[in-house]
Amino acid sequence: MNAKKIFLNEQDIPRQWYNLVADLPTPPKPPLGPDGKPITPDMLAPVFPMNLIEQEVSRERWITIPEEILEIIYRWRPSPLRRAVYLEKHLKTPARIYYKDESLSPPGSHKPNTSVAQAWYNKQFGIKRLTTETGAGQWGSALAFACNLIGLECKVYMVRISYEQKPLRKTMMRIWGAKCVPSPSKDTNFGRKVLKEMPDTPGSLGIAISEAIEDAVSDKSGKTRYSLGSVLNHVLLHQTIIGLEAKKQLKLIDEKQPDIVIGCAGGGSNFAGLSFPFVCDKIHGAKVTIIPTEPTACPTMTRGPFAYDFGDTARQTPLIAMFTLGHSFIPPPIHAGGLRYHGMAPLVSHAIKERLLEPRAYQQLECYEAALVWAQTEGAICAPETSHAIACVIEEANKAKAEGKEKVILFNYSGHGLMDLSGYDKFLDGELTNYSLPDVELKKSLESIKGLPKP
Amino acid sequence: MNAKKIFLNEQDIPRQWYNLVADLPTPPKPPLGPDGKPITPDMLAPVFPMNLIEQEVSRERWITIPEEILEIIYRWRPSPLRRAVYLEKHLKTPARIYYKDESLSPPGSHKPNTSVAQAWYNKQFGIKRLTTETGAGQWGSALAFACNLIGLECKVYMVRISYEQKPLRKTMMRIWGAKCVPSPSKDTNFGRKVLKEMPDTPGSLGIAISEAIEDAVSDKSGKTRYSLGSVLNHVLLHQTIIGLEAKKQLKLIDEKQPDIVIGCAGGGSNFAGLSFPFVCDKIHGAKVTIIPTEPTACPTMTRGPFAYDFGDTARQTPLIAMFTLGHSFIPPPIHAGGLRYHGMAPLVSHAIKERLLEPRAYQQLECYEAALVWAQTEGAICAPETSHAIACVIEEANKAKAEGKEKVILFNYSGHGLMDLSGYDKFLDGELTNYSLPDVELKKSLESIKGLPKP
Repeated sequence: MNAKKIFLNEQDIPRQWYNLVADLPTPPKPPLGPDGKPITPDMLAPVFPMNLIEQEVSRERWITIPEEILEIIYRWRPSPLRRAVYLEKHLKTPARIYYKDESLSPPGSHKPNTSVAQAWYNKQFGIKRLTTETGAGQWGSALAFACNLIGLECKVYMVRISYEQKPLRKTMMRIWGAKCVPSPSKDTNFGRKVLKEMPDTPGSLGIAISEAIEDAVSDKSGKTRYSLGSVLNHVLLHQTIIGLEAKKQLKLIDEKQPDIVIGCAGGGSNFAGLSFPFVCDKIHGAKVTIIPTEPTACPTMTRGPFAYDFGDTARQTPLIAMFTLGHSFIPPPIHAGGLRYHGMAPLVSHAIKERLLEPRAYQQLECYEAALVWAQTEGAICAPETSHAIACVIEEANKAKAEGKEKVILFNYSGHGLMDLSGYDKFLDGELTNYSLPDVELKKSLESIKGLPKP
Repeated sequence: MNAKKIFLNEQDIPRQWYNLVADLPTPPKPPLGPDGKPITPDMLAPVFPMNLIEQEVSRERWITIPEEILEIIYRWRPSPLRRAVYLEKHLKTPARIYYKDESLSPPGSHKPNTSVAQAWYNKQFGIKRLTTETGAGQWGSALAFACNLIGLECKVYMVRISYEQKPLRKTMMRIWGAKCVPSPSKDTNFGRKVLKEMPDTPGSLGIAISEAIEDAVSDKSGKTRYSLGSVLNHVLLHQTIIGLEAKKQLKLIDEKQPDIVIGCAGGGSNFAGLSFPFVCDKIHGAKVTIIPTEPTACPTMTRGPFAYDFGDTARQTPLIAMFTLGHSFIPPPIHAGGLRYHGMAPLVSHAIKERLLEPRAYQQLECYEAALVWAQTEGAICAPETSHAIACVIEEANKAKAEGKEKVILFNYSGHGLMDLSGYDKFLDGELTNYSLPDVELKKSLESIKGLPKP
């Protein structure tokens, strides 16, 4: 049981995704339309293809993964389960630390697990073209990658300031044949309106979402749809292959089921992907502590209320029951770009309400310190988002040491940090600081949800 | 035999490096000192530790890999042998294309196979600190990585223009605790001299080598040595683990020995690492075509003479018998930074002289086109250097198709291109051109070897 990399053969890859909805003690609150009533599947039809909408509302426990999707994701899946023996030794912990290495996909994160599935279902539905928004470019590059392999056109609206300051992800999108434009763009009515009013705006994710949705729904041929990289049920579903693989791999080496499962959570998809199969065990009596981690600068799960809120700044989406900081929340410029979302996936939020999860927040500096310990022991450079999981892993491993307990810790190594090295530079230069969201700021941004229905 | 990834267990990793010198039909020409006489090991002692000098001059066929080195490289080794099924399908070739994925090491290339070994032997010899030079930073980051894990100080002299224009690799070195300064620097006599004469110089690899060697030999404590990332016999030796693993992996899936073995060659180390175990087979009668590839812009093997020449621009090194464009050669600014060296490893050069290898040169544009085909079929983004191997793979796979032959092609995927995306951007913008070294330029740079001894 001393192996550092536990591989799974292609033929042993999970054949079904796991849908947590089937096992939740209580049903999640439905999304609401502008009239305050639960939305119906057909209301989503201009935005998403019906086969994905069916997944979004499904209550089936297991959903079969089409063979053609497996054939594509074999490029990097099954991902290895690795044991962090060098970190364990450094910490002198009796804990055994395992992680799923999701950094090995060509775009460098877990994102392609869902981008490939989404592109495939859209293609099946007769769609020719997908639109999406991207901030720093992680999701945009994952969707570009998938569309290229499956044969769809892809248009990415990238927040202008990132488009200008972070050209690397943009290049990845170009390599995979996607069209990437800075948002606000001249390609949509909304973009042109914003440009006219604020020609020098750096853009925002809210504006980019609006542009991507407008582009999709206004294609009169009906052959364009919109794609989202996190938050939604079907996105989390596609990620569960991570946790299902991990279970098989732990069994392969006769390791006990983990005592602690950890993942960072921005929209919630990488965390859910690893943890939901273990949440299922917990619902059925297993003793396991499951921890989604987030930045103290954007403390959605640890300080936000559970409330109905819009998914976007521009109030275009249905109302979603979730932990939220309010859709007017303006995230501080921390480097973990993927952890700055104001809300949290409804399924993750619901599991927190059910006391199945124990969220924790970490300061920026302790996360970068954890990332540095990781790079100097395990060797690899992690994404700033992933460092929020590693900070928690180190905390738990030290606790196991203090308690003298042989705990098994499992976490999701959601991505590498090679496209985010500038944050490390600033950290090493002493230019970064800790940041906790002030109460007054939180109170202010929560005003945006006043008057909305209560879950 | 349809597996796309062939893994080797840790316990099956090769336990010895392979030394081609033991099997060469004729002995390689010795390096010469300033007096024109073969140098002796003790003349290298101020620069390298004696245990590595012993490897440099060894004629033993097999050299045992210390257990402690294996324990470190297990972080990414054994590297998977992968089959490029998606490229095969795209090309409709009957060839089976396999590659060693050396991009999975934390610094992203094959380089750590030797940086870890070199750091370990230096540490064993009582050395406390290593110096080196780096151009774009690939080697500097690999040595920083190794020194960090083994516990040596590391000082990297990075060519100034790269230091300023390519900050990402510099950040990697910082993360792994190395000190990286722009060269020319104020830290050496030579650097200060150059800065005084040419305060605005962009620097050069020649200057950086001079600084790194001066730094090493002038440490009065005797605890500093210099480290080189390619060219030398012991560097190539450490890389042979790649080819030895590949042989085991092909056997594991009952695949026949390859008909064609391909690697790009700048200094020669990644090419030699994969191919030398197969060169051994060829010496003993196996029918295999072994192809080192290079850019037409720096056609060392295909157009340079086999001659004694200096390894560096500043004429500080011993004279080496190799294919060379002359040490005064100024490489054109192609994007494959690792393939712009004026010379070639003496062992690779000698094997070419013995007609064991069949070098080929490729144009910049066909290499980027090959890289794009790779990214859009296999999914991953390769290093510009690696694209010179892929261009040859595609050529050979198409040839197999034309001939209707089920050939087995094996190549070295020496590194990923995530730190070199700007070259792709320029290619996609149509800003890159082909470049063949003009005869008149070649003739001019070869004047620098006139009057030197002949091999």
